[in-house]
Amino acid sequence: MKNKVFIATSIDGFIADKNGGTDWLHSIPNPDKTDMGYEKFMSQIDALIMGRNTFETVCEFDIEWPYQKPVFVLSNNLPEIPIKYNDKAEIVNGKLTDIIKEINEKGYSNLYIDGGKTIQGFLKEDLIDEMTITTIPYLLGGGIPLFTELPNRLGFECIDSKIYLGKIVQNQFVRKRQSI
Amino acid sequence: MKNKVFIATSIDGFIADKNGGTDWLHSIPNPDKTDMGYEKFMSQIDALIMGRNTFETVCEFDIEWPYQKPVFVLSNNLPEIPIKYNDKAEIVNGKLTDIIKEINEKGYSNLYIDGGKTIQGFLKEDLIDEMTITTIPYLLGGGIPLFTELPNRLGFECIDSKIYLGKIVQNQFVRKRQSI
Repeated sequence: MKNKVFIATSIDGFIADKNGGTDWLHSIPNPDKTDMGYEKFMSQIDALIMGRNTFETVCEFDIEWPYQKPVFVLSNNLPEIPIKYNDKAEIVNGKLTDIIKEINEKGYSNLYIDGGKTIQGFLKEDLIDEMTITTIPYLLGGGIPLFTELPNRLGFECIDSKIYLGKIVQNQFVRKRQSI
Repeated sequence: MKNKVFIATSIDGFIADKNGGTDWLHSIPNPDKTDMGYEKFMSQIDALIMGRNTFETVCEFDIEWPYQKPVFVLSNNLPEIPIKYNDKAEIVNGKLTDIIKEINEKGYSNLYIDGGKTIQGFLKEDLIDEMTITTIPYLLGGGIPLFTELPNRLGFECIDSKIYLGKIVQNQFVRKRQSI
């Protein structure tokens, strides 16, 4: 059972710029439309856990619902899932460890943990096992950071690194809970 | 003429932990003592520019003076270089562009820009051409960040990535001043 992150940041670790913008994420020409491992990653997870913000952002996309896997929306105050997404997503809340246990017991072992605040919440409780971080090569100089304060330092190992489009690097980190 | 950075950070972008400590930089077993490209990098630079803090830290090391190349110490308030380092280092101050011009005119074209504040000062004026960033795989959850606020976003390209010791990733970014 693994909780996995797959996310893009700037070199200085932001997931959105000073104005909340994410245009820079898609600013590098990608003529062959490489997905930088996204479909492969998605094929290896059983369900997603995301925060309310990420869920509502996805709902606002003017596209078809993008996920083939069940989505669990972490929220204490979202009253209900919009009817059109009723069969796609459900609300969960409570203690993270309880939520994960419940989802695992439903048979979803490999979980995609998405959204800045959700990832931060999981990291604070040392509940992330793998992080694939795609570095879009900008220094933004400010914005919404992926990482924030943690009570304890967490050791990982970088087990793989790929360069896409000759410009973008994607590093895969796995958590090492024994001291390294 | 290039200004280059060669530095290690945590996954969350810190160069020192919450207590200013850097033990984690050297915590991963390195039985064959790989230098992770440091000597090669040093062979490609002509001189170093560092801030007062970095200089004083180096002076306090209980080892021989570590640099074979001239060192320029950026400081407005360091009165003088300690006598024992008189032939190793000299103080420079003023506008960064003037300092660089002066150093370039002495025949030093490729400069190693070192120390958090110094790097930040150079980046604020878009004076960094290359950054080799070695990611030591910890989330520290706080500390002294490598990157801080910038007036403008800066575009780079990641042109190389290497994994050392099966755990540490080193990414090489070059500045792209035309829009990417």
